[in-house]
Amino acid sequence: MKTVGFIGLGIMGRPMAKNLLKAGYSLRVCDVNPEPVADLAALGATPCATPRETAQSVDVVITMLPNSPEVRQVVLGPDGVLEGAAPGVILVDMSSIAPEASREMAEAAARKGIPMLDAPVSGGEPGAINATLAIMVGGDAEAFAKVKDLLLTMGKSAVYIGGSGSGNVCKLANQIVVALNIIAVSEAYTLAAKANTDPKVVFEAIKGGLAGSNVMNAKSPLMFARNFKPGFRIELHRKDLRNALDTGDATGHPLPFTHLAFDILEKLIAEGKGKDDHGGIVQYFEALTGVTVE
Amino acid sequence: MKTVGFIGLGIMGRPMAKNLLKAGYSLRVCDVNPEPVADLAALGATPCATPRETAQSVDVVITMLPNSPEVRQVVLGPDGVLEGAAPGVILVDMSSIAPEASREMAEAAARKGIPMLDAPVSGGEPGAINATLAIMVGGDAEAFAKVKDLLLTMGKSAVYIGGSGSGNVCKLANQIVVALNIIAVSEAYTLAAKANTDPKVVFEAIKGGLAGSNVMNAKSPLMFARNFKPGFRIELHRKDLRNALDTGDATGHPLPFTHLAFDILEKLIAEGKGKDDHGGIVQYFEALTGVTVE
Repeated sequence: MKTVGFIGLGIMGRPMAKNLLKAGYSLRVCDVNPEPVADLAALGATPCATPRETAQSVDVVITMLPNSPEVRQVVLGPDGVLEGAAPGVILVDMSSIAPEASREMAEAAARKGIPMLDAPVSGGEPGAINATLAIMVGGDAEAFAKVKDLLLTMGKSAVYIGGSGSGNVCKLANQIVVALNIIAVSEAYTLAAKANTDPKVVFEAIKGGLAGSNVMNAKSPLMFARNFKPGFRIELHRKDLRNALDTGDATGHPLPFTHLAFDILEKLIAEGKGKDDHGGIVQYFEALTGVTVE
Repeated sequence: MKTVGFIGLGIMGRPMAKNLLKAGYSLRVCDVNPEPVADLAALGATPCATPRETAQSVDVVITMLPNSPEVRQVVLGPDGVLEGAAPGVILVDMSSIAPEASREMAEAAARKGIPMLDAPVSGGEPGAINATLAIMVGGDAEAFAKVKDLLLTMGKSAVYIGGSGSGNVCKLANQIVVALNIIAVSEAYTLAAKANTDPKVVFEAIKGGLAGSNVMNAKSPLMFARNFKPGFRIELHRKDLRNALDTGDATGHPLPFTHLAFDILEKLIAEGKGKDDHGGIVQYFEALTGVTVE
């Protein structure tokens, strides 16, 4: 596990690839955008024109892409990973995508002798830069054992969840909880404001009790300061909740609260707030009630 | 502040009154149930027949009752606190009730020269027994200063929130967040189970990240163990959400998520689960989807 093909050098992928280079791995890199490819090449990576080329002569291929369609294209499409990778190469998709897409691609890859893991991350851009990502892994347990050290070059933890797709199921569960916890504090703080009670005092009074949460601690001060600079964008959280709803449809879970949360994100995106941090969800409740939590 | 009238010796009130006795306060006590009155009398408290009698010859009157109607009856009704208390006595209602009821009673009490504070608590029965309650106080700031030491005999913190009613607004905000955080993990874990992913592994994988919360840490192990022994009962949480919805109606906040949460509690109570711990909310999502999070 010395040579890695890395496809997708965006906000997350670029710093993750740099951490692999720093750790001494040989890298072949590819992106639709030439700028980060040149950036990585200047640090010693080999630039490649296609996913197929990136997957040649490597031990591991990592993909870090926006959503299921992009990963399908890069893995299964013409000039894709499965055209270039030799049997035995391990494919690790670290994108946050639909679990069903992970399972389908893992089956297609397995038919070519290529174990494919779904290994989405949490921790955002700071986690990618500082190699403190939390990595949730689904797929073949033996393949996971072989790449675990490599994954820990990019993160602080790499937890094996279960069979193919379960890494992304875990990520969706995480995103449901985070969205609903942001909504919980938003609904509570705006009720306080409507009832002439200072949300900042409420926060200080309740954060140490059962209502306390990492979301409350991280997002309340940003809400009070009207700081909605991402962080994690509402439009990305919308994508995750869309994948959660699709997974609910496929498995028979109506996800009533996630549905309502999704509608709120859609409304905020329609109003041009899609690039705000997801803490900006509070703005929906403020518009609904005519108060702010400042 | 040496002599206290204590009205309402239930699951919460009885241990709170005992902590006052232990701290050396003289107590006059009253309850509709003779058993806890006799219990406290055996420890040195003076039993009283009515709230009026309990409020005579004391510095402070504390009420700890189920909901707004009981407090109104005890404070404003015949043989009530306002008939017995001399001007200058401080009335501290530690029940969790509707903020609007707190405000109305505080006005009626003020007309008789009696400052009334709303001082609901969180921490449940263990907090009442161990004197570790978190006390949220609304009302006259001078009256609060006078009774703060007395309140800290029963709790670990007593935070001044603002004007009359704001103690209960803070408590409602707390209860909204707790209910929605329980629902968040319930919806996420049942989705994981539907998608063939072990909720226990999901919990371990995500609890350290942004999705982590005191609710997740406290309730997940109980959900996995099918332990729904209260704790805090669903029927009591229903009462708090009803007061939150009424406060929303009165102030113009539609509280869309709290509404949906309230409906779920109503359904669980109709199914005979009202006396389960509120962690048992997960059973609604299990019935909805046909899986358990065991």
